[in-house]
Amino acid sequence: MSDAVIAEPPILPAGPFSPAEREAVYRAIHSRRDVRSQFTQRPIDEDTLRRLLTAAHHAPSVGLSQPWNFVIIRSGQVKAKAQAAFVRANAEASAMFPDAQRPLYSALKLEGILQAPINLCITCDHTRGGPVVLGRTHQPEMDLFSTVCAVQNLWLAARAEGIGVGWVSIFHREDLRGILGLPAHVSPVAWLCLGHVDELYAEPELQSKGWAKRLPLDDLIYYESWGQQAG
Amino acid sequence: MSDAVIAEPPILPAGPFSPAEREAVYRAIHSRRDVRSQFTQRPIDEDTLRRLLTAAHHAPSVGLSQPWNFVIIRSGQVKAKAQAAFVRANAEASAMFPDAQRPLYSALKLEGILQAPINLCITCDHTRGGPVVLGRTHQPEMDLFSTVCAVQNLWLAARAEGIGVGWVSIFHREDLRGILGLPAHVSPVAWLCLGHVDELYAEPELQSKGWAKRLPLDDLIYYESWGQQAG
Repeated sequence: MSDAVIAEPPILPAGPFSPAEREAVYRAIHSRRDVRSQFTQRPIDEDTLRRLLTAAHHAPSVGLSQPWNFVIIRSGQVKAKAQAAFVRANAEASAMFPDAQRPLYSALKLEGILQAPINLCITCDHTRGGPVVLGRTHQPEMDLFSTVCAVQNLWLAARAEGIGVGWVSIFHREDLRGILGLPAHVSPVAWLCLGHVDELYAEPELQSKGWAKRLPLDDLIYYESWGQQAG
Repeated sequence: MSDAVIAEPPILPAGPFSPAEREAVYRAIHSRRDVRSQFTQRPIDEDTLRRLLTAAHHAPSVGLSQPWNFVIIRSGQVKAKAQAAFVRANAEASAMFPDAQRPLYSALKLEGILQAPINLCITCDHTRGGPVVLGRTHQPEMDLFSTVCAVQNLWLAARAEGIGVGWVSIFHREDLRGILGLPAHVSPVAWLCLGHVDELYAEPELQSKGWAKRLPLDDLIYYESWGQQAG
């Protein structure tokens, strides 16, 4: 045991939200979409962008290491490089699907890089927090997972602001590294396209377009151990 | 190009939330904490748990693959095994820190496994969605990242329900695999402790207790490329 004495820090009441507040949180969760086609050209103002980044920065992070950085991209030149990298990777991706799926795959729009007023790369610095990070000692990928929590915070905040977000993952990671000049100790985790939207699909786009279906939740729940379906 | 014709699916208006709704989303984001010590013994009712799991299940997932499963643990025996696995890993973890940090490390409470009415393991099935998954062709870890988005959805929904969540990551992954009987194609991503809370720390516990500080957001923002701080 230890001799360290820790003063009890400030604590606040923390019961449930009001029903209306709770519904707002669920509304953000349930109406959030992965946006490719609905971006308007209305610019995102600085205050709104700041609120989104602040939301991301308040994600949980392993050992409070906050491994994220935010690279904001408005330059058409940088977007064009990313779009070209997507096109190259997506041609490879298309060839990986069975013949029966390929026509639908090719007809899907999978990114809105050039249409979105802002592209945002959220990165993970694997050296953040020093050589030994609390909570990362046995699961080194926890820094990546913290960064993904920041992505999801931003995504939900964006929904509440009327801003659509699309996560583009069909890239060779090295291409993104080159385009943004990322050092070796930094990984690009999420390339996001952001813009105001006036409408969104009622269901996930891939479900609406017949690519995949939402699974029944009950099939995904187990009790006490893998495969045990009775509670 | 492709011959596939996709009928335009239902679309809904999607502007910004009302100011009150928006504030509720930000309240969840900013007052969420990683909980170890504040769990009450009040049970979580089935309807509430269902809303939390539904929120998780509505996370974005690569190619709509929904790679997650939810293993709900109420058994004291299973919790005791997990707690023992934590204690073993944490002894190893403690030894990794420099002498100057070790007393504070050892004084921190890093899990509430036995106190939390429910433990929940959210897993990632690497075979979900078939051998080729849209959006995962170039970044195979996207299934893990989707699973983390589900964790963060659940965490924010829980805050709105007055339920605290703590993510315990100081485990050998193989121990969790053994305790829950996970097959080889399934990874345990997050071991979460859930319980009603009446109060939470005003700031992240690790900041309040002097382990780490929140970084200034401005230091983390770049424009167009890594390291470029002027917008």
